[in-house]
Amino acid sequence: MDDRLKKQLEFVLEIDKEKNIFRQTHLSGHGRNENDAEHAWHMAIMAYLLREYANQEVDIARVMLMCLIHDIVEIDAGDTYAYDEAGLKTQKAREEAAKERIFSLLPTDQKEELTALFDEFEENRTAESRYAHAMDNLQPLLLNNSNGGSDWIEHDVSADKVYGRQEKTRLGSETLYEVTDQIIRENIQKGSLRE
Amino acid sequence: MDDRLKKQLEFVLEIDKEKNIFRQTHLSGHGRNENDAEHAWHMAIMAYLLREYANQEVDIARVMLMCLIHDIVEIDAGDTYAYDEAGLKTQKAREEAAKERIFSLLPTDQKEELTALFDEFEENRTAESRYAHAMDNLQPLLLNNSNGGSDWIEHDVSADKVYGRQEKTRLGSETLYEVTDQIIRENIQKGSLRE
Repeated sequence: MDDRLKKQLEFVLEIDKEKNIFRQTHLSGHGRNENDAEHAWHMAIMAYLLREYANQEVDIARVMLMCLIHDIVEIDAGDTYAYDEAGLKTQKAREEAAKERIFSLLPTDQKEELTALFDEFEENRTAESRYAHAMDNLQPLLLNNSNGGSDWIEHDVSADKVYGRQEKTRLGSETLYEVTDQIIRENIQKGSLRE
Repeated sequence: MDDRLKKQLEFVLEIDKEKNIFRQTHLSGHGRNENDAEHAWHMAIMAYLLREYANQEVDIARVMLMCLIHDIVEIDAGDTYAYDEAGLKTQKAREEAAKERIFSLLPTDQKEELTALFDEFEENRTAESRYAHAMDNLQPLLLNNSNGGSDWIEHDVSADKVYGRQEKTRLGSETLYEVTDQIIRENIQKGSLRE
């Protein structure tokens, strides 16, 4: 086996660890906590099926790949809950170190390609990254809503925090932001989100 | 929310259940059993990174989507282990019924699109489906090999069974079949695969 293929297969095996990084979101049917690999899989399919609602036309293959790889850094950096203020302060530094270590397992051209795609997602300026962020926000919102907002109740989350985060959904898709807004309002009304 | 978007979101929520369909393969590091969503996520990333080894040029977005959706029918039909001969006899009928129910949640155009993509994968005649099958076979092989072949030991699998299944890998990628062949030989030598 040549060195290039060997490196690619080492990376493939390394990212298996993403299946052990658990998030705060619970699966539908009041299931267990979701892991990053499942979340990414779900986002990528959603991205494909809902692409007609993206604010701008997107290269859907790029979006799907971005969704699939956007949490790989959490193998080292761990998951940072969207409303964990202390964790959010150190998140950037932890994820930068992880990005360097993990993507360096790949051949240089693929390391550069995936690093650029990860950075594009983080910077959230292109049509693709904005639409991918809409998926990153909508996916856990749908699961949480299906469970009666139990993740918000557990963490005593306020509506303004959720609205703050969901501003990114709006940049990617006005239509899906309307869905989000409707879900938030319903959860405020039911008392699962603090006003 | 209009009817089209409502249907799409119902489908999105339904496929969350794929995360509860567990396979015989174990995660690396002698981890727990892997589920279908994790397997599909892993396959889609592998497909992208290893596409240079496909026997024929492939439309990589189609391959990735095929990988992501190819096990959705198992939400109803359950996972059929590659070497479960009784299960394999009823697999087709169980999966056909599941395909009809689950994809019918989508708007008609998307139901037709995903059904066609699923059928294309199953028929295994196009360049994309053959390469996707190579991923479907290589992914669990890499995990199992990283665990010293423990899944084969557990099920007392013989090398000819594995070679039979891996013929599909060869149709998709000669180069990756060589990797497969090397791994099988090493596992026979170590005694984790019965000759």
